[in-house]
Amino acid sequence: MSVRIVGERLPHIPWEERPAGSSDVLWRFSQNPVIPRDLIPCANSIFNSAVVPFGEEFRGVFRVDNRAREMRIHSGRSKDALNWTIEHDPISFVCYDPDIGDFVYGYDPRVVRIEDRYYITWCNGYHGPTIGVAYTKDFATFYQLENAFLPFNRNGVLFPRKIKGNFAMLSRPSDNGHTPFGDIFYSESPDLTYWGRHRHVMGTTLGWQSTKIGAGPIPIETSEGWLLIYHGVLTSCNGFVYSVGAALLDLDQPWKVLARTHPYILSPQTYYECVGDVPNVAFPCAALVDSATGRMALYYGGADTVTAIAFGYVQELVQFTKDNSMIS
Amino acid sequence: MSVRIVGERLPHIPWEERPAGSSDVLWRFSQNPVIPRDLIPCANSIFNSAVVPFGEEFRGVFRVDNRAREMRIHSGRSKDALNWTIEHDPISFVCYDPDIGDFVYGYDPRVVRIEDRYYITWCNGYHGPTIGVAYTKDFATFYQLENAFLPFNRNGVLFPRKIKGNFAMLSRPSDNGHTPFGDIFYSESPDLTYWGRHRHVMGTTLGWQSTKIGAGPIPIETSEGWLLIYHGVLTSCNGFVYSVGAALLDLDQPWKVLARTHPYILSPQTYYECVGDVPNVAFPCAALVDSATGRMALYYGGADTVTAIAFGYVQELVQFTKDNSMIS
Amino acid sequence: MSVRIVGERLPHIPWEERPAGSSDVLWRFSQNPVIPRDLIPCANSIFNSAVVPFGEEFRGVFRVDNRAREMRIHSGRSKDALNWTIEHDPISFVCYDPDIGDFVYGYDPRVVRIEDRYYITWCNGYHGPTIGVAYTKDFATFYQLENAFLPFNRNGVLFPRKIKGNFAMLSRPSDNGHTPFGDIFYSESPDLTYWGRHRHVMGTTLGWQSTKIGAGPIPIETSEGWLLIYHGVLTSCNGFVYSVGAALLDLDQPWKVLARTHPYILSPQTYYECVGDVPNVAFPCAALVDSATGRMALYYGGADTVTAIAFGYVQELVQFTKDNSMIS
Amino acid sequence: MSVRIVGERLPHIPWEERPAGSSDVLWRFSQNPVIPRDLIPCANSIFNSAVVPFGEEFRGVFRVDNRAREMRIHSGRSKDALNWTIEHDPISFVCYDPDIGDFVYGYDPRVVRIEDRYYITWCNGYHGPTIGVAYTKDFATFYQLENAFLPFNRNGVLFPRKIKGNFAMLSRPSDNGHTPFGDIFYSESPDLTYWGRHRHVMGTTLGWQSTKIGAGPIPIETSEGWLLIYHGVLTSCNGFVYSVGAALLDLDQPWKVLARTHPYILSPQTYYECVGDVPNVAFPCAALVDSATGRMALYYGGADTVTAIAFGYVQELVQFTKDNSMIS
Amino acid sequence: MSVRIVGERLPHIPWEERPAGSSDVLWRFSQNPVIPRDLIPCANSIFNSAVVPFGEEFRGVFRVDNRAREMRIHSGRSKDALNWTIEHDPISFVCYDPDIGDFVYGYDPRVVRIEDRYYITWCNGYHGPTIGVAYTKDFATFYQLENAFLPFNRNGVLFPRKIKGNFAMLSRPSDNGHTPFGDIFYSESPDLTYWGRHRHVMGTTLGWQSTKIGAGPIPIETSEGWLLIYHGVLTSCNGFVYSVGAALLDLDQPWKVLARTHPYILSPQTYYECVGDVPNVAFPCAALVDSATGRMALYYGGADTVTAIAFGYVQELVQFTKDNSMIS
Amino acid sequence: MSVRIVGERLPHIPWEERPAGSSDVLWRFSQNPVIPRDLIPCANSIFNSAVVPFGEEFRGVFRVDNRAREMRIHSGRSKDALNWTIEHDPISFVCYDPDIGDFVYGYDPRVVRIEDRYYITWCNGYHGPTIGVAYTKDFATFYQLENAFLPFNRNGVLFPRKIKGNFAMLSRPSDNGHTPFGDIFYSESPDLTYWGRHRHVMGTTLGWQSTKIGAGPIPIETSEGWLLIYHGVLTSCNGFVYSVGAALLDLDQPWKVLARTHPYILSPQTYYECVGDVPNVAFPCAALVDSATGRMALYYGGADTVTAIAFGYVQELVQFTKDNSMIS
Repeated sequence: MSVRIVGERLPHIPWEERPAGSSDVLWRFSQNPVIPRDLIPCANSIFNSAVVPFGEEFRGVFRVDNRAREMRIHSGRSKDALNWTIEHDPISFVCYDPDIGDFVYGYDPRVVRIEDRYYITWCNGYHGPTIGVAYTKDFATFYQLENAFLPFNRNGVLFPRKIKGNFAMLSRPSDNGHTPFGDIFYSESPDLTYWGRHRHVMGTTLGWQSTKIGAGPIPIETSEGWLLIYHGVLTSCNGFVYSVGAALLDLDQPWKVLARTHPYILSPQTYYECVGDVPNVAFPCAALVDSATGRMALYYGGADTVTAIAFGYVQELVQFTKDNSMIS
Repeated sequence: MSVRIVGERLPHIPWEERPAGSSDVLWRFSQNPVIPRDLIPCANSIFNSAVVPFGEEFRGVFRVDNRAREMRIHSGRSKDALNWTIEHDPISFVCYDPDIGDFVYGYDPRVVRIEDRYYITWCNGYHGPTIGVAYTKDFATFYQLENAFLPFNRNGVLFPRKIKGNFAMLSRPSDNGHTPFGDIFYSESPDLTYWGRHRHVMGTTLGWQSTKIGAGPIPIETSEGWLLIYHGVLTSCNGFVYSVGAALLDLDQPWKVLARTHPYILSPQTYYECVGDVPNVAFPCAALVDSATGRMALYYGGADTVTAIAFGYVQELVQFTKDNSMIS
Repeated sequence: MSVRIVGERLPHIPWEERPAGSSDVLWRFSQNPVIPRDLIPCANSIFNSAVVPFGEEFRGVFRVDNRAREMRIHSGRSKDALNWTIEHDPISFVCYDPDIGDFVYGYDPRVVRIEDRYYITWCNGYHGPTIGVAYTKDFATFYQLENAFLPFNRNGVLFPRKIKGNFAMLSRPSDNGHTPFGDIFYSESPDLTYWGRHRHVMGTTLGWQSTKIGAGPIPIETSEGWLLIYHGVLTSCNGFVYSVGAALLDLDQPWKVLARTHPYILSPQTYYECVGDVPNVAFPCAALVDSATGRMALYYGGADTVTAIAFGYVQELVQFTKDNSMIS
Repeated sequence: MSVRIVGERLPHIPWEERPAGSSDVLWRFSQNPVIPRDLIPCANSIFNSAVVPFGEEFRGVFRVDNRAREMRIHSGRSKDALNWTIEHDPISFVCYDPDIGDFVYGYDPRVVRIEDRYYITWCNGYHGPTIGVAYTKDFATFYQLENAFLPFNRNGVLFPRKIKGNFAMLSRPSDNGHTPFGDIFYSESPDLTYWGRHRHVMGTTLGWQSTKIGAGPIPIETSEGWLLIYHGVLTSCNGFVYSVGAALLDLDQPWKVLARTHPYILSPQTYYECVGDVPNVAFPCAALVDSATGRMALYYGGADTVTAIAFGYVQELVQFTKDNSMIS
Repeated sequence: MSVRIVGERLPHIPWEERPAGSSDVLWRFSQNPVIPRDLIPCANSIFNSAVVPFGEEFRGVFRVDNRAREMRIHSGRSKDALNWTIEHDPISFVCYDPDIGDFVYGYDPRVVRIEDRYYITWCNGYHGPTIGVAYTKDFATFYQLENAFLPFNRNGVLFPRKIKGNFAMLSRPSDNGHTPFGDIFYSESPDLTYWGRHRHVMGTTLGWQSTKIGAGPIPIETSEGWLLIYHGVLTSCNGFVYSVGAALLDLDQPWKVLARTHPYILSPQTYYECVGDVPNVAFPCAALVDSATGRMALYYGGADTVTAIAFGYVQELVQFTKDNSMIS
Repeated sequence: MSVRIVGERLPHIPWEERPAGSSDVLWRFSQNPVIPRDLIPCANSIFNSAVVPFGEEFRGVFRVDNRAREMRIHSGRSKDALNWTIEHDPISFVCYDPDIGDFVYGYDPRVVRIEDRYYITWCNGYHGPTIGVAYTKDFATFYQLENAFLPFNRNGVLFPRKIKGNFAMLSRPSDNGHTPFGDIFYSESPDLTYWGRHRHVMGTTLGWQSTKIGAGPIPIETSEGWLLIYHGVLTSCNGFVYSVGAALLDLDQPWKVLARTHPYILSPQTYYECVGDVPNVAFPCAALVDSATGRMALYYGGADTVTAIAFGYVQELVQFTKDNSMIS
């Protein structure tokens, strides 16, 4: 099989080859965690963050929980996507309606370029968690739009292009607490203000993805479908365990699942994934992909405390998803 | 104060004057329950139902739980809005997309005429409860549209006209069970397919409305604002208690609350409200209003088992809401 | 269809014909409740009780909760199965091993004649609820055997004859509280001491039987299979609702379900079913059947407080079960 | 046995003789409920209230939940202790410290005369429920003292005289919700400001008193000990059931329990006890006793909605408590 | 005291002497964890596993959770009981009835030789967790028998010989989730198909064994009684903590407890016990004992992730159990 | 600002300067944990312990959970407050009333010298957790007084001198389990027997202190107010996280909060704070302060397993509290 990847050539993304002896489809960066919890003075933790290529450099939006344990979003910049300069103050969104723009809390951002704008979506506090939407052209000024949905929602992830003329978003409807359920849905919008045509994409199954699931990085367009990396949660007697899996969605009707990994592709096993503010969490939020080689640097949060990277080849992951699919 | 009511003249709606000695703003129909639980053979219960004037007669959509305790919506007709003929089979919606049109469950319908169509909204099962939307012109054929929102949602109630060019709906985001929280939100749509510009209207407070609240009948347009009759829930050590209150919303910006009753205007106190499938429930879903006199017949479910009517004058209720408002 | 009923001719069981205008497959006794809560001085309530023909008369074992709200089992006698004389003292079981015979609590008894013995099974407190087993020949002396199963179990119901040489019992494994789940299982025993070959019979589905189900009276042998009347529980926001349904089980392999009612056949709707120590309970425990006519008097508990009777024809109920089966 | 009752002669208290055929130690007033839920216009319910002789008349403090379902305490007066005139406005306590005197909520009052003052204790909202204390000499002006304890506490009941020189109070430490546990404790105070020497009196056992217990009326002094009438709670699958029992406490060391009824002496069985805002509640708060005859009129709340009376003879109740004691 | 140990001479089991300075009755293997989580490619974790001598070598059945986090049982072999070769595929049981043989999930196996067969018991998914039973003679072909009990049950552990002619098993009745309770019971069977004569052995007490307890390795026969090593669970605010204790059971009536350790003998304190898929778990499943010396190698799961070994002398553990018994 | 510290000169307390590069207001001891979990043979863990200067040396009371996981209090001595000799047996309190003196469990002690006595307060089991009080003059004989309050209470902390003539105590009313709420209250006593004049000090807010808060070490008197170091709890999806903050209380009316840190000043981030019997706990119980320099050694429990020390300057902490206060 020859998998074609749609996207930029990004030869300068972080990369390490698969360690000798490993047959895993993803492998961890040897220098993990790439971003420590205290990179900036106010930070309790920096995790579940999103990065994007920006000219010859990289830009990112970062979940920074401050030392009051308030959830904030900061912007940052890097030349190599490894060494980051993160702003000490949270992003101050420009918004036409103060009822929407008044910041309560924000976390787990994603960022995607569509045409000439970089869109940020995040879990935004507005009488409960819902999906905030904003854009920037320069990572200096951020314009906040209407929230996409009513509460309660989390893990809103835009597709990197319009589908049949509409913006498209995955999200995970939730409740107002540590939600013990959660499926992935698909929604469309002609204008990023009004959303509809909601479709169920996939639900929980067994094992590592038996409690809830949610979209991770921006879906990666390939000739085999949208490659969706997502998180799944298992509930042990001692709490939630967040692992990572992958699925392939139909290019034109992304609510149709073509393949979905039965096993996880990454689970919390290292110290920085197992020990921290929330033990046993590997939570993916962004991926840098070089379309020429298929190299992927997957950014994920460890233990809700630090940011780590795992590497892999997109074409291998597509194949793995097909070969280990629970959908026949 | 002179309260003007926007709406039809409906001199033929059900009516009884306030009983002697009563000073209550609402009073119960002496023949309650107006619809018994077993009006049609398949029915376990008929409640939380909506009625609307239709020419010289009346039409309605009824929550009918069948004897498997499945929640279904039936249509019905009546000449006097008291004696109802309810179809033995549930409404079979016509829908262009079977993924949406496949009926799982439906309950707590509302119905409203906007221009030449009668719109039905209801709690619709689609991978969780959300707001189903359909319309009919004749109460014979019902066309189902897209669900308004992502799950989990209940008590979706349309305004009886567009506001600033958009359809407008109140709803109560929920979870997937017997939700122990719930505020009322406002959303807009240019086309009944895409919804957005979501605004928080009001939340829970104390006493009878301390657990959750939800819109009841279609808001009644008056010169003082939209009169919203809503339900509120209190959690006793033996479960939920559903009572009824009222609020006035700004005509142009209905998410702004002008007044809101501190006391309830009706609470479960009679046998048919206190004893039944769910004890202690008075749940309003529809109101017939004669704009000339202000007479209102409020239809509400009793104990999740039967349908009852309470009477009142809209102008008195508007005044009561202002005089007993918790908002200064 | 001609349904043949295996069993005694019992022309003297209680009986009333179906009320005019009713099309229900079961109908209530006009003198309900047949046993009031305070028939004997110590009683807080008398319900979930079992009766059996005994010569020309009737005998029974009764759940009597005393005024300390302790659960006890009493024996009683009647000439007409309507007017009962219940012993003021609980049954004192004779047991060879005091560790088993020490009575902690007992409730929801069933009684069945197999050959020359009347076997009683009940929910028996032994470090948690399990299934107690005893027999009597005269309703004067009761010999207690080993508990059939490990805790936690309830609703143990013997078949009225050995099947392929073994005693056979239905039961509902539980937890140690107000169990929010519960399926019906089948077990065999060569000797009433050792039990095994456990098979799953049926689980919960939707609506009235969505939370848990449990066998009710002794299964009634018919030419169409074992007629099993069972209870099902729905969880409303205000607690459990216990209704009654029916199933047909394979005569030789009773864990195979041939038919099962989609609707309930009786649900709590009268005052004595809806108001009492536990509102909204109709809980069947015994049936007297005249094999010649098919007349059946179904004894059931109302609101965990009183004992009531419903009537029906076994052959009609068999047909109803087939016609309204959720199993195609 | 000859039981001597310490207290006033009150020949004019309400009274009805035991109904023919009854052997119950308590019997209900034939005109129950004695106070309906809507005796005053603002009232949703009037229950769990306390009455006391006052000269030739009677005075009382009443739990009145208003139609916002806020819990308030009102004072009232009556000539016969049956027909009550209740103030339309809640009691406005005079308090030297506004932090204590700011009324948040109050419920379940008790009243007792000690020397020349009438002391009121109630469940008082101060950052959680605790025991409020106030006194009046005339039922016109009420002086609020310091709260007796830290939150969370309910059912604070003063003894009718100092014991060994100290004021004495029973109470039931709780949590901040519908507490699922609760024992009765004893505390002393030299001055009604500082409290200490806390002792455990008795805890939950089985059946009707298995979830929590709390003191009811002011203890009645007899030659056999303090007669304490108390409530006990059982948790059914549909919620709490509140019944009534009795105990005898040592006169000098009231934390020592001499006898305690194994059965309840009253449980919710009538419509007004089983149906209302909280089904299945009989909650005693006051007793009028004629020391000459032993006649007792016990005031208790029904279904958290109305006020009812049960009658009995104190000397019979003392004897019943001894004869049916769970303490050997 | 001279403790005699019944069993084989096994001079070749793993062994390390007690570390200098330690006075603990058990001590950890210096090379722990002896089996890493990823010994075979499909494995997420390998823990709660059982080993047994087999000729000159060793055989085992291993709980292997695969990377879908499904619970599976694999067989394995080793010459030194330290270095294991585990089959890559789960055991495929041969079963005469597909309803029983259809594998859903299996975990926490134990293995014991009785006469010429090696019996495996495990927690087997059959409409809930129950005790699966199988045997093998060669660890190549495994024959599955009937499940021993109805659901819900876990930690079924056979005794290593018949007692008074019957097979004997300990088990812990449970619920269908992360059961928050659990006592050890004893059951007998003449034929491994039918089970009965259930007896309560011991329940929870305080501290480390306050939530639930369950049998660990096959009981070790000694002159002082059956030495039962078991796990106990404490519930902290952050979840369950699994520790290890010991008891002595009567040889002929094993439901009679002769002694039981008040302190634990091992608790999770090392990294591999505290950090992993379920933090803070030490869960014993097997013990290799050399009857000549009393040396014991205890195999236990660490953090539900890896397999570890602790060493001790059986005679010292018997003495410790007596000396530190909570049973006088 | 010049902060004056009231208290002894203690030049010999443990001390390390702030590490180079750190700007934190508190920093950890490089030799942490200062007391390991197994310092004495019976100990499972030693944490949440209190120390006090005693002549030229130091004395302490230590929470020691034994290997049955029973909570006990031991006394200990040290010359340098780093190397401790802890008694192998728990403190045996002398108490005049065995009902109070019977030890059930005790944990989280604090110790303070007032005049010539050293007072110990701790969470004391008396039909639920409450605040035990005792004193010693020599750390050899400990005299137990009355419990300060009714259950349920924890974290009772005395002020180091009488305030307006009364002893003063902070405490946190609780429930009987892993309480999910908790505010700090203030109470007074003229005699350490009777307590009253209870005032609410402060409640939970957001982030790290959103679930419950409780006083830590004895308040430190400064010219700017009482410096209160306290713990706050956040509830993640995997349980509680205990961090440390600070507040300034009015000197004369300590229930009035002058300042309170919005961020935490210490949170669990090291291995010994994140891994142990309860992951993610930093719980302060004592502080040694040198009034001359302002040096402070803060003793806190790590992971409910070990004892650690953090250092800081009191005057800096006072300033930090003012500068980062959530109270304007």
